[in-house]
Amino acid sequence: MNVNLPHDLPAVEVSDILAREKAYSQDLQRSGKWRHIWRIAGRYANISIFDVSDNEELHRLLSGLPLFKFMEIEVMPLLRHPSAVRDDDR
Amino acid sequence: MNVNLPHDLPAVEVSDILAREKAYSQDLQRSGKWRHIWRIAGRYANISIFDVSDNEELHRLLSGLPLFKFMEIEVMPLLRHPSAVRDDDR
Amino acid sequence: MNVNLPHDLPAVEVSDILAREKAYSQDLQRSGKWRHIWRIAGRYANISIFDVSDNEELHRLLSGLPLFKFMEIEVMPLLRHPSAVRDDDR
Amino acid sequence: MNVNLPHDLPAVEVSDILAREKAYSQDLQRSGKWRHIWRIAGRYANISIFDVSDNEELHRLLSGLPLFKFMEIEVMPLLRHPSAVRDDDR
Amino acid sequence: MNVNLPHDLPAVEVSDILAREKAYSQDLQRSGKWRHIWRIAGRYANISIFDVSDNEELHRLLSGLPLFKFMEIEVMPLLRHPSAVRDDDR
Amino acid sequence: MNVNLPHDLPAVEVSDILAREKAYSQDLQRSGKWRHIWRIAGRYANISIFDVSDNEELHRLLSGLPLFKFMEIEVMPLLRHPSAVRDDDR
Amino acid sequence: MNVNLPHDLPAVEVSDILAREKAYSQDLQRSGKWRHIWRIAGRYANISIFDVSDNEELHRLLSGLPLFKFMEIEVMPLLRHPSAVRDDDR
Amino acid sequence: MNVNLPHDLPAVEVSDILAREKAYSQDLQRSGKWRHIWRIAGRYANISIFDVSDNEELHRLLSGLPLFKFMEIEVMPLLRHPSAVRDDDR
Amino acid sequence: MNVNLPHDLPAVEVSDILAREKAYSQDLQRSGKWRHIWRIAGRYANISIFDVSDNEELHRLLSGLPLFKFMEIEVMPLLRHPSAVRDDDR
Amino acid sequence: MNVNLPHDLPAVEVSDILAREKAYSQDLQRSGKWRHIWRIAGRYANISIFDVSDNEELHRLLSGLPLFKFMEIEVMPLLRHPSAVRDDDR
Repeated sequence: MNVNLPHDLPAVEVSDILAREKAYSQDLQRSGKWRHIWRIAGRYANISIFDVSDNEELHRLLSGLPLFKFMEIEVMPLLRHPSAVRDDDR
Repeated sequence: MNVNLPHDLPAVEVSDILAREKAYSQDLQRSGKWRHIWRIAGRYANISIFDVSDNEELHRLLSGLPLFKFMEIEVMPLLRHPSAVRDDDR
Repeated sequence: MNVNLPHDLPAVEVSDILAREKAYSQDLQRSGKWRHIWRIAGRYANISIFDVSDNEELHRLLSGLPLFKFMEIEVMPLLRHPSAVRDDDR
Repeated sequence: MNVNLPHDLPAVEVSDILAREKAYSQDLQRSGKWRHIWRIAGRYANISIFDVSDNEELHRLLSGLPLFKFMEIEVMPLLRHPSAVRDDDR
Repeated sequence: MNVNLPHDLPAVEVSDILAREKAYSQDLQRSGKWRHIWRIAGRYANISIFDVSDNEELHRLLSGLPLFKFMEIEVMPLLRHPSAVRDDDR
Repeated sequence: MNVNLPHDLPAVEVSDILAREKAYSQDLQRSGKWRHIWRIAGRYANISIFDVSDNEELHRLLSGLPLFKFMEIEVMPLLRHPSAVRDDDR
Repeated sequence: MNVNLPHDLPAVEVSDILAREKAYSQDLQRSGKWRHIWRIAGRYANISIFDVSDNEELHRLLSGLPLFKFMEIEVMPLLRHPSAVRDDDR
Repeated sequence: MNVNLPHDLPAVEVSDILAREKAYSQDLQRSGKWRHIWRIAGRYANISIFDVSDNEELHRLLSGLPLFKFMEIEVMPLLRHPSAVRDDDR
Repeated sequence: MNVNLPHDLPAVEVSDILAREKAYSQDLQRSGKWRHIWRIAGRYANISIFDVSDNEELHRLLSGLPLFKFMEIEVMPLLRHPSAVRDDDR
Repeated sequence: MNVNLPHDLPAVEVSDILAREKAYSQDLQRSGKWRHIWRIAGRYANISIFDVSDNEELHRLLSGLPLFKFMEIEVMPLLRHPSAVRDDDR
């Protein structure tokens, strides 16, 4: 997930949208739907792992992101690896 | 990590290398260095998260993979995201 | 799904693998898991739509393809479009 | 079909164009010309299958889309696959 | 249409396949199905215009090329341009 | 030749430039310099074949296009194909 | 690190941000964190080598750059090469 | 060297900058530093050969171009070819 | 022009083909058809300028290269630049 | 600099070529021509900085590498950055 904020967006609008984004993300993390999130060094971007029941739910979560219209998102479908040992890497 | 096995590799050599790859990966997972691994749907490839002290250690682990010479690996440097809530997403 | 058959594969092996591929594909189509398949004009490739319960099932179906090791597959996660009118475009 | 709406388009203009787009798409779906449509998870984009008599008709349908000037469209020419079992995958 | 002949193909096989390719192409040109063909300077490749009734026919013509398995083909769907003045640019 | 009109260009300016573009193109087609033109399905783009004496003339024709500053043009140098049967595919 | 300054940024703002960028970079170079920096000929871009304890520190340094929001940065994780002879190429 | 002039740049500013660009280029050509320049057919771009003592000098010449901030430049390091026969292809 | 020699080509065949390539190139340079040639630093590749009457002649020269079947060639159509001062940069 | 060793190269030939490569690289490092070298984590590749008098010398050093014919090398022309503080970042 890359974020591209237009450089002429008013500062007030930016801080508001970022606050809502953070709350939204943390709610989903606490619910277990958004299982992992990491920052990519040197970029305004992240790598996230979602645990959803289907693509319908995934899209509803992603398109609900306050920053969605400024994001470029690539979804990679993952599954449990046959060599995985941790129970929750599913 | 993508794997490209030459199609003319003898079957015995293939099964031997895959067995060693699996043991190697599971040892590192149990030690906590290889924190997560997922299969990418439809491809002979995986997405993995490593928890290492520096690039030196990361390269030693990766270049020690029995499948290393058949792999195409891209490393993306990650760090804790400011919105992360799980203690171990570091 | 692109297919790249090595040009030095014996003709007998080729016709055998293609026969098994066709039977495998048609069984899955009849079961409803492999909902659609189209040939791409001018290429040895197809566009297919799968209707599976999760990524685990999708990968099991794809990696079971007799031609799997000669294929380059890209999976695009789809869902029902809000403007869709047909019941089975899900 | 990817959609890129300029972020400074007035909200009224956006909701008007989206309503016209939906009506246009559903009319064509009901006529059978626009056979399938799916949303791509995490993106403002879709995958669609058209059943038209020639490229002339296809272009007339696509260039008539209310969102056409904000879209990036790639057309892939498809045909019936020799292994297809459904009568209407043509 | 790019052609990639393996450099270890026997010379006899090469000259035979090229002769059949030329005959096949010229038959289709005379029938009017293969309307135009140009060589691209400096490459073993061509740009061709086909005049076919549908994608089914196009694929049958292309996959029948003696060089088909050594070719990389990209099909671009064309139609009459609204500014065209020549009757046969359709 | 792809055309990218800025979405904020006044409608009057757009219709004026398009009328001049059409007249310019048709004059060149009638003179035989612009031998063929086709629309690419689903895109605001065309494929054209020019018959000019050298690159100097080609550039003069292209840079004289009223839409030139909004276009992205790729020139591919063509010549008569050894298998061509039509006299004017040169 | 590529820099893309919007061409309509006021000249005063530009010279201010460039002065702060230079001071920031030179402080880090003197501290030893920013070990090397070279200009890429013909481009407004540089190649830099950082010597940091982890990705966390690297991202803090990079995201603190006054030009950060106008930059496109790609981080490549490096380590000591087994053939290196200089002590400080680590 | 590609040139991308913003389409909303005032006409006076454009003609001024182009006049200065031409004078700058011709001075360097006469001095022998800018050995060759060709227009690329159909594009607002050129291919140039510079004969400079080092990268420092090359960058000084390029970044001094009046159009520099509107250009995308790729530098390819060249040297005398072992098969060259002309004395000044160095 | 990039050259890719298969690594299993016999050494005798390699030296023979390289000798013929050099002679062929130097004959064309002396005739004035092959106006310039430079080596690209660090690659088995060159940048060349040809001065030919049309694409037909260019292709005949290029496809006659002894190394032609091992080369990847990209032709860029050039013309005299309006700012050029040297008579022979045409 | 990426290295691609064919997987069917005899082990004896591989160890011999790697030994010669290491000696060659270390001689150049000691002479000051090959100023820096780093391994890229997870890949059989390196990033190197050369300090040479011109492209001629650079190409002679690179094409003399025992692994040269198995390498893919990209040269980026660098120069002293105006913000550099270290004397030897030139």
